[in-house]
This record gives sequence, structure tokens and C-alpha cells, in this order.
Amino acid sequence: MSETPILAPDANGPTICIGEILVEIMATTIGNGFLEAQPLTGPFPSGAPAIFIDQCGRFGGQAAMVGGVGDDDFGRVNTDRLRADGVDITGIHIDPVYPTGSAFVRYRADGNRDFIYNAGTSAAARIEWNDAVEAVVERAGHIHIMGLALSMPKVSEMIERAALRIKEKGGTLSLDPNLRKEIRYSDETEARFARLVELSDLLLPSGDEVERAAGITGHEAAIARLFARGVKEIAFKEGARGATVFTRDGASVHHPAFQVTEVDPTGAGDCFGAAYLTARRLGLGIEAALAYGCAAGARNVTRLGPMEGAGTRAELDRFMIETPKVA
Amino acid sequence: MSETPILAPDANGPTICIGEILVEIMATTIGNGFLEAQPLTGPFPSGAPAIFIDQCGRFGGQAAMVGGVGDDDFGRVNTDRLRADGVDITGIHIDPVYPTGSAFVRYRADGNRDFIYNAGTSAAARIEWNDAVEAVVERAGHIHIMGLALSMPKVSEMIERAALRIKEKGGTLSLDPNLRKEIRYSDETEARFARLVELSDLLLPSGDEVERAAGITGHEAAIARLFARGVKEIAFKEGARGATVFTRDGASVHHPAFQVTEVDPTGAGDCFGAAYLTARRLGLGIEAALAYGCAAGARNVTRLGPMEGAGTRAELDRFMIETPKVA
Repeated sequence: MSETPILAPDANGPTICIGEILVEIMATTIGNGFLEAQPLTGPFPSGAPAIFIDQCGRFGGQAAMVGGVGDDDFGRVNTDRLRADGVDITGIHIDPVYPTGSAFVRYRADGNRDFIYNAGTSAAARIEWNDAVEAVVERAGHIHIMGLALSMPKVSEMIERAALRIKEKGGTLSLDPNLRKEIRYSDETEARFARLVELSDLLLPSGDEVERAAGITGHEAAIARLFARGVKEIAFKEGARGATVFTRDGASVHHPAFQVTEVDPTGAGDCFGAAYLTARRLGLGIEAALAYGCAAGARNVTRLGPMEGAGTRAELDRFMIETPKVA
Repeated sequence: MSETPILAPDANGPTICIGEILVEIMATTIGNGFLEAQPLTGPFPSGAPAIFIDQCGRFGGQAAMVGGVGDDDFGRVNTDRLRADGVDITGIHIDPVYPTGSAFVRYRADGNRDFIYNAGTSAAARIEWNDAVEAVVERAGHIHIMGLALSMPKVSEMIERAALRIKEKGGTLSLDPNLRKEIRYSDETEARFARLVELSDLLLPSGDEVERAAGITGHEAAIARLFARGVKEIAFKEGARGATVFTRDGASVHHPAFQVTEVDPTGAGDCFGAAYLTARRLGLGIEAALAYGCAAGARNVTRLGPMEGAGTRAELDRFMIETPKVA
């Protein structure tokens, strides 16, 4: 297995995420939707890019967030948390008119979830390329992209602009190809997604997203196609079965999941990806980074709230010692 | 005291309200704002015009609502409740893009409240004059106006247009002059407010709103000025001291408050006004209507949620028998 560094080192500048910052409000009872008053808990800081960047910061990597929040407590819940966890928040715009985005979540008896989102018509969707964003992008060493964020037109344009600039100056790019398979995206979004796959140094897919990103069926064929298109490393998230990293030389390394009691699955994949990426950027090898990724994902599901279980490197070290792996 | 009918009778067509429909989410602990995750409860149907019209419907009057909700459970919480309470909801627009408006509320230790609102950038603010609204306005016998709703530009225009049309065809108008004294409104809003005061048959003020509506200081002078400008009846809400109705002939009648344990004060004034107005439109005299108003306001504060305590006429009859008045 090749251990050539594939990512810009942490010292070259922060990992940045561009995308939605939300608060999450959770129902504390199982049931269908939100059709009557019920007990809830929140606001928890949330939004997939925000969860990711928070875990980067907590792990000890340089990290910066570009996004938008309202001038309200829900915005402050997020900016306070990110700042406390070491994330540069100078690229977060405080919208004077629109509120912080929100996601209400309730679990059904069958394990599925009902959501009420306000993202597209919140401060999260109204960000612009301004001097603060420009400065963050110029400092950046790496950009991590959430596929889902590409469905917001303005945000999507900013992401591609930042990605091109960061790659141009020698930075690297990772992509979570988490477009939803049940949604039909615009041709523009699909074309941009394909361009960003081409630019990716590291992919962080789960399920059938490998095939989605490659545009062909068959897991192995898809991996081969992605490497042929320039991807250098694929960290494949397998949930309760752990994770496997594939490299261009045809090798792969697997790490089993840790045995935990799941309290709240939200954010597990983002914490996995952020810890793996940050460990790699800090110079760790694939095996060590993969262990941190699995630990970060597992630890996060033991706490209620999307990023409440994001661990520092020391917390993850302790977690790995104390927690048995799935046989 | 004059008992000449001053309002279009209920049989002439429904009372309508135009304005915001929201869900309310309440913190269940006392504290400052929403800066950390905490227990909440909701969604409760809310929005001052929605509370008012719901109490009209529950009391047994014809009632119709004009407003906007998102295509989400928070919208359905409202439309389901209003429909169940007898309110015509054909004038409620389901916005395909914007979410149902929301208000998060938390009580501080000093009794004041912190809010996080999303109204101005929600479905509540995006209503238009369409065929459904036109039909509701053409059927209407009376319009009740919330002063606060005049600060939303589009909604404010629709309210004045509907008010002029309803008055033109012999309908009547009531106004809750609840503009906030701490807010400086635009000249346009102030001018529209003044025009609507002139059109009012019934005013439902509290505190210093009598003076606010008259534009002069001094409670008695303000009442005289309002009658001189065409107002026919003023039902003055005095909270824990009950309420007093003033008529053009210089007479007044007072009703004490009912003794209740306050669980949630939100909606008390709206329920008072709606029960008073509806009783009057159904042909009841001032004293009987005033008793229903006081009972409706008092009953509503005994339940958690802005309109959870709105009573039917039979429930209010029972409430009045069972509940002592404040000495």
C-alpha cells in the first residue's frame, strides 16, 4: 500500500468547508412527524459541513468555515461552538434579515426519520463571495465538499470557485458524494458534481455513492474508474461494518466498527470523514487515520446531537482503548 | 348605555382575519435565550390573527382566515386546528417554497420573554391577493385587524384593501391597535394605521394603546377623540383588572377578571377580543359579551399554548359558573 502523502499538509493552511449551518431540534418521542405538540430538545449546532469542520477543529487540525447564520441565538449556538472547537469563523456571514436555518427531526417507529427543514430560505442559502470569504479561501490548504450542498445554487457556485482556486495554488480536495439518489438534480448540478469528482484527491462515499460518483454500476469497476479519473484515495464508510480505504495501487485496508450504543446516528459519517482527513493532513498513515475515523464516527453516535460527540484526538485515543471493536 | 347594534350581524358573513400563522415552540425551563440545548415543547398553532380567528370559530361565530403556511407539518398543525374549530381555511395559501413561520419563546426569571421569530421570511409574509382571498373577502361580514400585522408590507396592503371593500358593502371593522411602542414604524405604516382607526367600529386596545390610536395623551381625552373620529365602541383590556367597555354616549361598563392560575399568558388578549366581538356579532349585549370576553381571556391562560385554552360558548358558560371573579 502506497503511503505517499496525497493531501496538502495541515501546515499549508486550514481545511475549509462551505455550506449550511443549521440548528437541529429533535423530538424526544418516537412517532410520525410534528402534527401535535410534543417534547423536543435543542437547539443543537448542526449542518453537515459544520459538523465536519467542527470535528476537524476538535481533532487539532487547522479548520475554517464559510457559511451564513441569522443574527439570532441559533446562529450564536453555532458560531460559539465552532469558535470554541478551534474553527476560524471569519468566513461566517451574519445575515441581518434571514434567520439561522433549522432542521426538526423526529424518529418513526420503523427507524426512519421525518424532517422539517428551513435551509433554502434561511441565512444558510444567502451567502455571497465577499472579502472575508476570499481571505479564507486564499489561506486554505484543503477544501472538503458535501455533495448535498451542491443543490443550493449560490453555495454551489461558491464551492466550485473556491475548489478551483485552492487546487490551483497546490491545495487538495475531498468530496463526500452524498447526493440523494431519490432526488433528481438539475443538469447544472450534475455537471458540477462530475467536475468536482475529477478534482477530488480523496473521496468519502458510503453505500452506492461510489457508483454514483463514478457514473457506472459495480463497486469494483466504479473504484477503478474513479482512480482512472484522478482520485487518489477512497475512504469507504460502511457504518456498522466499519470502513475500508482503497488506494490507487489496488490495495485496501479495512477497520472494523467500534461497539457502541447508538443514541443519535446524525453526524457519524461527517465525524468519520473529518477525523480521517485531518489525521491524514497531519501526516498519519492510512491505518492510523482510519482508526481515528472509525473512532470519531462511533463516539459521535453515543451522544444526542449532531456534533455533541465529536472528540478531540486525546478523547479518541481514550475511546479506542476503552471500546471493543465489532468482531 | 346605548345597545344599538354597532357591528354587522354574524348572519351577514364571517369575521375574517388577515395575517400571520405561526407555530410556537416553547422552552420548558426558565432562562436566557436559546444558547444551548434545552427541553422544549411544541409545535403549538399560533400567530395573533390565527389565535383570534380560532376563538371566533370555537365560540360559534362564522370565521375565515387569510394567511400563508408552508407545505409542512407546521402548516398542517395550524390548518387542522382552524378547520376543526370551524374556521373557513380556503383563504390560507400553502407556499410551495417557504416554510411555515415560527416563534421560539423562552421565559426569563424576571417574567420577560426571549423570542426567535421567523415570520418576515416565512410563508406568513408571502401571501398575495388571489381568487381565494377575493372570495373570502366578498363573503365577509366583518374584518378584525391586528395592528402588528401592518408592519408586513404585503400583508398590510391586503388588509387595507379588504377593509375598504368590506366597509363599502356594509360590513364592519375591529382593530387591535397593538403596534409596539418601542418600534419606530415607517410613515406608510403609521398613515395606514391612522386610516384604519378612522374606519374602526370597535377598538380593542390595552395599556396606552388608546392614546396611541388617538394620537394624543390622556386616557379620557383619547377616548373622546376616538369617538369623535367615528369609533363606535371601545373594549379596553386591563389584564388582571378585567376589562371596560366605553360607548359613544359616555357610558362605560366594567367586568372584573376571573381568578385563574396563569400557565401561559400568550393569546389572552386575542381570545378576549374574539369572544367579545363574536358575542356582539351574534346579537348579545355589551355586558354579556364582556363577560364572555373576560372568561375567554382567563380560560386561555390556564393552558400551555397560545390557543389551547380557547373555549366554546358552552365551555365558557361552565367556566363562568365555576370560576370566582377577582374581588
